[in-house]
Amino acid sequence: MENSNQNKKQLPERISLAHGAGGSVMDEIIQLIANTITEKNVKDGIGLKELDDGGSIPLMDYEIIFSGDAHAVHPIFYPGGNIGKLAICGTVNDVLMMGGRPVAIGDTIVVEEGFEISKLEEIVRTMNEIAKEARVAIITGDFKVVPKGELDEILISTFGIGIAKKGQVILDSGLKPGDKIILTGSIGDHGIAIMAFREGIDFQTELVSDNAPLVDTIQAALKAGRITAMKDPTRGGLASTLNELAKKSEVSIWLMEDQIPIKDAVRVASEMLGIDPFEVTCEGRAVLGVNEEDANRVLAAIRKTKYGKDAAIIGEVKEERPGMVILETKVGGHRVVEMPYGEPIPRVC
Amino acid sequence: MENSNQNKKQLPERISLAHGAGGSVMDEIIQLIANTITEKNVKDGIGLKELDDGGSIPLMDYEIIFSGDAHAVHPIFYPGGNIGKLAICGTVNDVLMMGGRPVAIGDTIVVEEGFEISKLEEIVRTMNEIAKEARVAIITGDFKVVPKGELDEILISTFGIGIAKKGQVILDSGLKPGDKIILTGSIGDHGIAIMAFREGIDFQTELVSDNAPLVDTIQAALKAGRITAMKDPTRGGLASTLNELAKKSEVSIWLMEDQIPIKDAVRVASEMLGIDPFEVTCEGRAVLGVNEEDANRVLAAIRKTKYGKDAAIIGEVKEERPGMVILETKVGGHRVVEMPYGEPIPRVC
Repeated sequence: MENSNQNKKQLPERISLAHGAGGSVMDEIIQLIANTITEKNVKDGIGLKELDDGGSIPLMDYEIIFSGDAHAVHPIFYPGGNIGKLAICGTVNDVLMMGGRPVAIGDTIVVEEGFEISKLEEIVRTMNEIAKEARVAIITGDFKVVPKGELDEILISTFGIGIAKKGQVILDSGLKPGDKIILTGSIGDHGIAIMAFREGIDFQTELVSDNAPLVDTIQAALKAGRITAMKDPTRGGLASTLNELAKKSEVSIWLMEDQIPIKDAVRVASEMLGIDPFEVTCEGRAVLGVNEEDANRVLAAIRKTKYGKDAAIIGEVKEERPGMVILETKVGGHRVVEMPYGEPIPRVC
Repeated sequence: MENSNQNKKQLPERISLAHGAGGSVMDEIIQLIANTITEKNVKDGIGLKELDDGGSIPLMDYEIIFSGDAHAVHPIFYPGGNIGKLAICGTVNDVLMMGGRPVAIGDTIVVEEGFEISKLEEIVRTMNEIAKEARVAIITGDFKVVPKGELDEILISTFGIGIAKKGQVILDSGLKPGDKIILTGSIGDHGIAIMAFREGIDFQTELVSDNAPLVDTIQAALKAGRITAMKDPTRGGLASTLNELAKKSEVSIWLMEDQIPIKDAVRVASEMLGIDPFEVTCEGRAVLGVNEEDANRVLAAIRKTKYGKDAAIIGEVKEERPGMVILETKVGGHRVVEMPYGEPIPRVC
């Protein structure tokens, strides 16, 4: 009760878009929602207070990894994917980021009355295709319809279950000084592709979403070396992800700007749209902290996978200035990469 | 592909409210969505094709029970509860109906821009209270905001994880001739309370939703005797639930009308509203198939629990006329209780 009253004092009266945008503003809502684990069933597991990519439940020699997302992307069909692909990829990747092997998915689909059944069929077909690629089974779910006008087309929530051996869960707080930071692919593709599509921006080369299930990429990385932390840069992009990792691990992350993969189309469109690509949602990328000695081996293993071809070592972890993310720019200067206020693009995921 | 084309021929072009209403019309959409389990991780588990209350994943000597629902009830605060209470109860109960002990919950909350934060606080507080009562921990989740006008207030999806020992999963298909049918409380309270509240109908006695977490009730039942099948009568009410049980178990269910608990307020309001209370959503009731010899012991155990005081043996299972639900009326006649076309009240859950 006291906590709730304290929250009330700091909080505005109404929800704004930024409250769901993954940046610093979202924190106040998350604090309102996050509850600590108190039940004995899960007392040695991971709960909401960790604010990691998911939770976990200990069972004998295993941890059941549990993670979920709501998906409200708009438009629901976009270059390179649709809301169904996003839903499966997002949840599969969150389970992977905890060190779990994804095994099963549950989904709830809520549609507006009048929604075209052919669209639903295409979305469901895509969900099944991606689930197959990710080697997970969709085993449970729910379907609801709300009256016309009470929802914009469709919302999908997905939850995933993964299995990890006890002690193999990977947390955001695991980075150690000396670790290298690997990014599995170029940044900003998903958010910028959607924003450009909405704005009718035409590229000479096609820019499509990066949405992808990272099962093979992450499993290759885990086999190749010691991974200390993992996180996928979704809402709030690379900037948000690295800031979270640095804060939770109480270390600093030093980035080399010229090593960060970014497509020309993303760079150009970001400038046109006035958006910082560092703060834009990716849906098929991961940031890994890797033990220094293993970094090149892990990088090589990732690059051999379908969704890891453009992977790069983009920086390293230091002890000094804990919680900070610092970018060494192309011209040799340094600037702090701040925790973004929020994802700059609404309904991007 | 072939299947999908066949579906297309039978399906209308657009989704109607009835497609989400839990009755016979919903089947065509469910067939579109339901995929069979193909992944080896879960091949001995329960999948979508079973259309049970959830799925399951085998792990060593256990089954991980997995179940989820989307919640779109309107109004979001109603007599006896709110959307947060509904969300936790619904998922806890679905896990219980599979024979699982609920341990953890994940939730996604999507709100419309401008939603009052005090309402969100109250909903979240309720979710935590009910989770505590049900002895589950909310360990993971997601929070998203969509622009104003693109959602009517709030949608919550919840997924639950439960644990069962291998071989203890309880399926809808388990009814055997001779079994008694126990109903844990009165029917129609939730749906009629919401509908009456919307229509401004005033009762002399207060009618409130039955929404409740049935952990103690079901655990008491499981301890007291052999339970052959369980299902909670949500969308489509008792009529839908009993028809599903009869069909999946390939038996008939014979009901005694005068044994079915129903409140006077529900009876009166149903008549006023022209709704069959047999077809109305409950959110805190369960139907159990119980071995004949154990039925009185199970009934007594259920009646000792907070949410089982009005439990009754309402019928029995026979071999003849498989798939049928037959009601022996108060005046001694018989009528077939049909699978309803759909839940008669929109946005009731």
